[in-house]
Parts: sequence; C-alpha cells; structure tokens
Amino acid sequence: MSFGTAEYKERIRKTKERMASKGIEVLLITDPANMNYLSGYDGWSFYVHQMLVIISDEDQPIWIGRGQDANGAKVTTWLYHENIIPYPDDYVQSDTKHPMDFVADIVKQIGQDKRSIGVEMENYYFTAKCYEQLKKGLPNASFQDATLLVNWVRNVKSDLEIEYMKRAAIIVEKAMMDGIGLINEGVRECDVAAKIFHSQITGTEEFGGDYPAIMPLLPSGEKTSTPHLTWTDERYKQGDTVILELAGCYKRYHSPLARTVNIGQPSEKIKALSEVVVEGLNTCLDMIKPGIACEEIEETWRKSIKKSGIIKESRLGYAMGLNYPPDWGEHTASIRKGDKTILQPNMTFHLIPGIWLDQYGFEASESFRVTETGCETFASLPRHLFIKDGVLTKN
Amino acid sequence: MSFGTAEYKERIRKTKERMASKGIEVLLITDPANMNYLSGYDGWSFYVHQMLVIISDEDQPIWIGRGQDANGAKVTTWLYHENIIPYPDDYVQSDTKHPMDFVADIVKQIGQDKRSIGVEMENYYFTAKCYEQLKKGLPNASFQDATLLVNWVRNVKSDLEIEYMKRAAIIVEKAMMDGIGLINEGVRECDVAAKIFHSQITGTEEFGGDYPAIMPLLPSGEKTSTPHLTWTDERYKQGDTVILELAGCYKRYHSPLARTVNIGQPSEKIKALSEVVVEGLNTCLDMIKPGIACEEIEETWRKSIKKSGIIKESRLGYAMGLNYPPDWGEHTASIRKGDKTILQPNMTFHLIPGIWLDQYGFEASESFRVTETGCETFASLPRHLFIKDGVLTKN
Repeated sequence: MSFGTAEYKERIRKTKERMASKGIEVLLITDPANMNYLSGYDGWSFYVHQMLVIISDEDQPIWIGRGQDANGAKVTTWLYHENIIPYPDDYVQSDTKHPMDFVADIVKQIGQDKRSIGVEMENYYFTAKCYEQLKKGLPNASFQDATLLVNWVRNVKSDLEIEYMKRAAIIVEKAMMDGIGLINEGVRECDVAAKIFHSQITGTEEFGGDYPAIMPLLPSGEKTSTPHLTWTDERYKQGDTVILELAGCYKRYHSPLARTVNIGQPSEKIKALSEVVVEGLNTCLDMIKPGIACEEIEETWRKSIKKSGIIKESRLGYAMGLNYPPDWGEHTASIRKGDKTILQPNMTFHLIPGIWLDQYGFEASESFRVTETGCETFASLPRHLFIKDGVLTKN
Repeated sequence: MSFGTAEYKERIRKTKERMASKGIEVLLITDPANMNYLSGYDGWSFYVHQMLVIISDEDQPIWIGRGQDANGAKVTTWLYHENIIPYPDDYVQSDTKHPMDFVADIVKQIGQDKRSIGVEMENYYFTAKCYEQLKKGLPNASFQDATLLVNWVRNVKSDLEIEYMKRAAIIVEKAMMDGIGLINEGVRECDVAAKIFHSQITGTEEFGGDYPAIMPLLPSGEKTSTPHLTWTDERYKQGDTVILELAGCYKRYHSPLARTVNIGQPSEKIKALSEVVVEGLNTCLDMIKPGIACEEIEETWRKSIKKSGIIKESRLGYAMGLNYPPDWGEHTASIRKGDKTILQPNMTFHLIPGIWLDQYGFEASESFRVTETGCETFASLPRHLFIKDGVLTKN
C-alpha cells in the first residue's frame, strides 16, 4: 500500500463528512482514482465494472469487482478480505447480464436498498447503462449525484502525497530533457516518444516510475496548432517546432510539464509568442498564494498577455494529482474565469498556458503546490523555447 | 489518415445499414475507437466529451468536440471542415455547462431533434450524466441503445487492417523477447517495463509503434494469482514466476500476447500448469475455422484441460483490433460458454487461456485471425514456460 491505514481512515472520515452534509447514506464509487484514494486498490482492471461502496455507518468500504481481480484487491488494499466481493465472469461485457445487477443484489442483501445512494454521474467508469440498471435493480433507493464528492476531498494533499508528486517531478525533468536531447532533424517522432517512455518508467536509481494517465503528447510542425495529437513515425524536419507535454508518475501521483523546442532557429513569430507566454506564466507564479481565487490567476494572465494582442480562450490550468487514464486532472478546480475556488496550502495544479494558433503553437507549463505564503513548482527546468541547432542550445 | 476515403465510406455504408435495421435515424458515437473507425479521428482528447454524429440521410458524419481539438480533427479525418464543430472551452469539466447541452443545440439546429437517436449506453465515454443531459435537451427525440452497433461492423477486418495487426505483432514479438531477455534475479520490475515500452513505441526500422490501449501487465511472484497488476520498483527474486501480457500497436491496431517466465528452475506445480495450458491452447488453435461458434472453442478447451482437474471460470478470449485506453477488446464476441457468434474469415481474437490460482498463475496467449480454412496467429513465439537460469534458456 502507498499510505498507512491511518491515512486511508482519515480520508474515509472526510468522505463521510461530505456524505452527511449532502444526505448521502451509501456512496458508490466508480472513479478508479477515488477507489485508490480510499482503499489503496490499484490495477488495470477499470476496463470492467468495479466499485467501492462506502456506507455511512460502517467502518470499512466494500470492494466489488471481477472475480480474477479479487486477489489484486487483497494484495493492494487495507480492506478485510470479507469486504472484497467478486462477481462471476459471465457478467463481463455480456449482453444479458450487467455487473450493476450484481451490485444491486449485494446492496439489497446488506439491507442498504432503501437508503439515499450517491453515484458518480459524470465519470468515465459509470456509464449511462450502469445508472439505468441500478435504478431498475434498486427501485426503493433514492439516487443522488455524488460526482466529484471524493475528488474534492483529494484536493488538499497530505505531506506524503506531496512527496510522491516531488518524486514524479524528478522523473518528468529527466524524461523532458531526454526527449529534448534526442529531438533533431531526421529523428523519428516515435523514437523520441520511446526514449521519453523509457525515462518515465525506469525513473531513478532510488525509485521507479508508474505509467502516466496521459501518454506523451508531442505534436510537431503544423500539428502544434492543436494540443492532443500523439506521435507518428515521421522524421522531424529542419525548422519544426515540437511541443512536449508529459508527466512523471509515482505511485499514481503526477507532475505534468510542457515545454517547446524548435529545430533550428525559430521564426520571429514563434519567438515572440514564446516570450509572451513565458512572461505570463512567470507573472502568474509570482502572484499565486493561499487565499486568492483561481479566477484571479487567470485575470493576471489575461492582463499580462493583453499588450501582445493574443487571446487565449481555453482554461489556464486545473487541479491534479492522483489519477488513472484517461486524465491526470482532478476535474475540480479550474484556473479560469468564474472559478471561485480559494487556494489553500497543499492544493496542487497544472498551470498550462498553451497557445495554439492556426499554423503553430507554444506551450510552457508548471505543476505547483500552494505553500503557506506563495507557491512552489514541482519541477525546475528553464521555461523558454528550447532551440536545437546542431547541438542542444537554449534560447 | 490510416485508410483511404473509400474504406471510410464503406464503413459508413455498413453502419447506416445497421442503423436502418434498428430504426435509428441519427447515431451519436462517443466510443473513440468507433470515431476513429468511421472518421479517422485520432488524438488523446477523449478525456473530454466529443462525438461523431451519423445521420441516415447525410453523406458525411459531423464531428463535435472541444475547440482546441478542432484542428486535430481537420488534420486526421476525411471530413469537410464545415462538418467539424467545436464547442467553447467553458463547457469543459464545468459544473454549470455540459457538452451534451451543446450537442443537443446542434442537433436541434440541424433539424434532427424529433428523430430516433441511437446512443452508446455502455461506453466509457458516455457517462450517466451525458444521457440525462441529452434527454433534457432533446425532449422530442426517441432514444435507442446503440451500444456495439459500430463495434460489430469492426468485427470483420479489411486486408489493410490485417496488415496493421501483422505489424503490431512484429512489434509485440520484439517487446516480449526484450522483456523476457531482461528479467532476472535482482532486476527491477520497472526497468523491465521501461524496456518493453521502449520496444513497443520505437517499433522497427521500417515503422514505429503506437501506444497500446492497456499498459504492460507484469505481475510476479504471488501477484501472479491475479492478472491486472502492473509493476513496482521491486527487484525480482530467484524462483519468481513473472507473467507478461502486452500488445504491439500500430496505427491504433493491436496484437496482444501473453507469456510466462520463471527465474530459476520452476516448481513441479507451475510446470504442470504450464503444460496443461499450452496443450489446451494448441488444441484450440488446431480446431478454429470459419463456420464454428465461439462457444465451441471454449468447449474444446474445457475438454482438453478436464483431465488435469483444473477449472477456468473466466472467458477464454475476445474479439479485438482497433482501440483506445482502457481496453483493446472490441466488447463484441467472447470465447466462452453461450457465445453463439459464428467465426468468419478476418475476424480477429485474443485467445488467452490464463489460469490464476491462489498462490500462482500461468498465461500463454495468441492473437489470431480466422482464415478461409482455419486460423493463423499474428505472432510466432514459442508458447511454453520460459526459464531464466543464468542465461536465457527455454523449457
């Protein structure tokens, strides 16, 4: 397990506090990050249905999942073995049986079927069908949307969680510099991606890396006009701009980071764009401290870049930490207009002021934690546009 | 694009045929593999809501997604640019606006809101909340469950799709042997995983690899009692059994493969288990041909292992090919009791007779395509228990 039992119990206590304030008596958790956060459960089994059941007046959660994953739950969680309930394999991807029918039966058997039940309505691992089947199977329950209930508990990190994110940052620094080091004219995109993966997973001599919730994103050339393309086996050309967005991951905790490289001397346009973005990023990092609202960071950014005439429509950042594919973001606070979340010490964000214009783009980002008096970035690499001109040189 | 426009159009034609037979006039596709299959769209953007709209009496699908991903859709799809409709960024992970409200508005604007609308009820990327918002936004539509409608079209592969899976197999053979080559007493699990990733992504000199939909699974020691644990930074010990399940991936097409290694001489128990499984696997591969039902393969397997006294409760395999995280399976046909799917040439499966007992386990699998007269495996590596005894030797 990544944490001691006391830390898991404290998380359960905080979760029950939020359940009580919303009148939720039984909470069905399907988000794999929330399952891990509360129980320690870790495995690539979220492609089938699984869940953690938190009952307001019971000490321990119940894990329900596929039979072959029950031993995985025994190995990775702090739960009593009798709280690990496997369902038979003929519920898996079947057109006649649904795992939520099994869940409904269990909820009935333990006498919880007439209570107020919270479900994560907006989660990758709670499909529309899951909800329909649960409603059918539990006609006497009253359902409530408990989306993000546990995510908000995750928002402020413990010191050990921060330590894990610092380790993830050591990994991402190495992976980023290895990627930038290899990028050059004639090199294949996939070979750079392979090098980055190797660094992400092998980690350091002291500790290894875990798989990040998002694969390395490394669009190049015109593809830098959009942020979410991965890689091809094409070769880089002289003049290409390459954006790298990747994370280090340690025990499922992330430190994402983005940097941009130019192969050969950059155009004036991309150079100017990079300076605007880096100045805006620096200005934001300087003003972040406990007590301000997320939207104030965005306002600072907007004022900083105003003189350049550049407009950024998309959000500037988001809370992140523990997660599983397909996203390392926590889906709680966003750094954007209208977000009134007040920063507290040990909240952690990815501040990513990427600009994607129609022909080219630039990204430089930092992951940071809010400290008692300001903020500190997890990684420490130069933020400017990197320039590959024969040998690795910097702008 | 991975395929010519003619192939995409043919896929759309087949999809419309199935829509017609189910009385579906408008199909909302949220499965990223189905989106890719019909439009070519490729990007790690499925962590926000996005969709393809297929209208029975319109030639081209409509792509709806996040603003910053619209350029990605222009780069990767065969769609007219006017069919690419971006939504503003304040719909992303917001607690006041939902992307399905935007989708409902578009469906109304194009006059499709009083029709029979198919949605993928059982898909990771169509949450319970998505369905609730769509029903609210489109009160005059009649909704139908269109889960797996496109997946079933994907079931029989074209020759070019088979070619991509063959390339994926070349990659997985290399990644598997590199992993097995490195595993030894004192080596860290994460270093083996890193080596495997590197091989998966760098591919060959002729073509590079894509990220597989499932990360390498490599439980060792007692953790081989369950199949879905990934890796740690612990070191292998003498006597450890290590199961490797991984895939090569080329342009999103997979060839998964599992093998098992023993560090040092194996116990009699694990040796006996490996022989039972490999014999069962071989017997199945010998009898597979067009015209038989999936359940007949499972029956052959069950008869083959009966004399050993071992019972396998979980399914023996599943259809697979094109996919995105978290699963490379197609969720259509399964090789198990009760599955009446009749095999046809160019259907592709992962046949994975893994056995996980309480203290140890063994897996050896093959990905295969059904041919005109039988089947052929994509990869060709020995199936037996690999033994690492100082130098790499084989059982």
